[in-house]
Amino acid sequence: MNYRKKKVGVLGGGQLGRMMYETVLKWDLDLHFMDQSRDFPVGKVCPNFEIGDFSNYDDVIRFGEGKDIVTIEIEAVNLEALRELRKRGVIIHPSPDALKIINDKGLQKMFYESYEIPSAAFQLFQNIDEVKKAIQEGGLSYPFVQKVRTGGYDGKGVSVIKSKDDLPKLLEGPCLTEDLVPIDKEIGVIIARNESGEMKAYDPVEMVFDEEANLVDYLFAPAHLSSTLTEEAIKIAKNLITKFDICGLLAVEFFLTKDGKLMVNEVAPRCHNSGHHSIEACETSQFEQHIRGVMNMPLGNTHLKSKAVMVNLLGEANATGEVRYQGMHECLEKGNVNLHFYGKSETKPFRKMGHATILEKDINTAIEKAKFVKENLIVTT
Amino acid sequence: MNYRKKKVGVLGGGQLGRMMYETVLKWDLDLHFMDQSRDFPVGKVCPNFEIGDFSNYDDVIRFGEGKDIVTIEIEAVNLEALRELRKRGVIIHPSPDALKIINDKGLQKMFYESYEIPSAAFQLFQNIDEVKKAIQEGGLSYPFVQKVRTGGYDGKGVSVIKSKDDLPKLLEGPCLTEDLVPIDKEIGVIIARNESGEMKAYDPVEMVFDEEANLVDYLFAPAHLSSTLTEEAIKIAKNLITKFDICGLLAVEFFLTKDGKLMVNEVAPRCHNSGHHSIEACETSQFEQHIRGVMNMPLGNTHLKSKAVMVNLLGEANATGEVRYQGMHECLEKGNVNLHFYGKSETKPFRKMGHATILEKDINTAIEKAKFVKENLIVTT
Repeated sequence: MNYRKKKVGVLGGGQLGRMMYETVLKWDLDLHFMDQSRDFPVGKVCPNFEIGDFSNYDDVIRFGEGKDIVTIEIEAVNLEALRELRKRGVIIHPSPDALKIINDKGLQKMFYESYEIPSAAFQLFQNIDEVKKAIQEGGLSYPFVQKVRTGGYDGKGVSVIKSKDDLPKLLEGPCLTEDLVPIDKEIGVIIARNESGEMKAYDPVEMVFDEEANLVDYLFAPAHLSSTLTEEAIKIAKNLITKFDICGLLAVEFFLTKDGKLMVNEVAPRCHNSGHHSIEACETSQFEQHIRGVMNMPLGNTHLKSKAVMVNLLGEANATGEVRYQGMHECLEKGNVNLHFYGKSETKPFRKMGHATILEKDINTAIEKAKFVKENLIVTT
Repeated sequence: MNYRKKKVGVLGGGQLGRMMYETVLKWDLDLHFMDQSRDFPVGKVCPNFEIGDFSNYDDVIRFGEGKDIVTIEIEAVNLEALRELRKRGVIIHPSPDALKIINDKGLQKMFYESYEIPSAAFQLFQNIDEVKKAIQEGGLSYPFVQKVRTGGYDGKGVSVIKSKDDLPKLLEGPCLTEDLVPIDKEIGVIIARNESGEMKAYDPVEMVFDEEANLVDYLFAPAHLSSTLTEEAIKIAKNLITKFDICGLLAVEFFLTKDGKLMVNEVAPRCHNSGHHSIEACETSQFEQHIRGVMNMPLGNTHLKSKAVMVNLLGEANATGEVRYQGMHECLEKGNVNLHFYGKSETKPFRKMGHATILEKDINTAIEKAKFVKENLIVTT
């Protein structure tokens, strides 16, 4: 197989695309990206960058024509165009059919139900009025979580409704509601698959959320999880990627309930924030693994070489403007602090601007350093 | 320190520059490269690439003006221009004075002599006639090594003269001769230093050469070396980088003689083939460390995380033309084989086209895989 002769197109040019580009530069592949501006993370560093809107039919067709393989770094892409490209012989990973389901949280939940994948009980609604009606009629009771069916990301599109007082927080549009399950912790598993059917899972990680920004705050690898639950999580992830018939990566987010049950929260068919630690902590980074998966290369070893803590570097709450990373020197001085900045020109409150991965034999040392980074690495103007 | 605001210029756009670019993409720095063609390894992947000849005074001045720091990925740069840029306030690492000495193997040998750095006994000559005269007069005896004083690289510019029959192999121009010391093995140490005076050395590695191409064939990390000799090698490297007053990297190549003595063969003030394994095998890659050194960042931990074998991937002996990497699939299938291709469009006999680093707990498994890679990864047309 002459991989170098395969033209690979990636829809999206954000930080996930940038890290993908960085990671596989070593392979001299023919990788192309498309997004709306050369000022986006990938556009600044990759000469093979085309301007276009990945949600626009014509732009995706134009970009995809002449490519051998098209993949994504973001889900919100034009599915009709991908289907048309597939008809024309372009290999599309993940498949538009899987994307269709995953992009609609309602369809996602029905998918889990039909394959008996454990997930919180849910109801579907067309709008806020229907939700309110269900409450009045006793079909829905507090507390519950409301999720818009399409378009949510990074914690946006989710509302926790604990009582009547929270009703003004209800979100517009078709949505689903889930029981608010008492959660012990959140667990992530990233799994890879290729056309030959090979599958490899990364060790489960544990995510701790920032309440205010509703974004991952700290990530621990490996998760504190019994071997039984670890095996179960990986088994569910394998089942999901097979049923979705996905090549490349599938990131699976689980809730571990207080009574010790794993429930799938949601999935993403791409590289994911919960796998950033893999760049330094695993034998194969998730970004390389995604490319291996979509190009049908042998999958890489996912072995976790070191305990790791990952912390997202978010834009300061009250800073908007040209970015300045403050405290880089002090953080590097600590040693074993791996900093990543995404090359976004402008910082905004809580915008994901980078991340840091700390590798240590002793997890407590890693946690201490992660706290130091969180306090001292200021993304401001 | 706002590192992002520092404009850094790198002279040279070959594979070392490309790996430097790859490695520090994560830091969102303002890195610029200059070399003669956009078809060179860096030009293809880095938008901040300027066309110019690094040995040309005007080109280097034009490139260096407006930069805060200028560094190199190849030594053969215009030193007058670097001196002029330094006068104008640009920080130059390594210093033109160190480069002047290192670029002339005669000056290098005199430098070692003056600082009592162990190195093979030598004589300087202006031309072939002088060499022959010395042999006739008994001042030089077989066997010996002849090295041209300037312009040699990758084994070129070196001739081994074992007897009268080899005299036609003598090279033109000012040269030096060295006693042909019985060598047990070749050892490499890469050391880093920054303006604050911090120094960090990588563990010594052991190099095995391909007789035909006179290029590193296999590299073992760590070297099989007693702790006394390891300490001595690092001590000499520290002494050298301090005496040369270099910031960034200094790669030191040693001969270990059959009677167990370390002798400096030569040095390079930059990232080096003998440090490629550091990308995966060390906490900090040499490419990152060089940038840390020249930007006066805290140096990274050089700890060797895993035993490693590195093998250079050279162009096939009888292939010239557009490159094709054959056997990539089979090598990736082996697992823990890290392939790097440099993005050179054209392969030529013995041209350095890439390298592979194999990480294994058991060094014999690593060696076996390295042999597999050498036999199965064919760089051809």
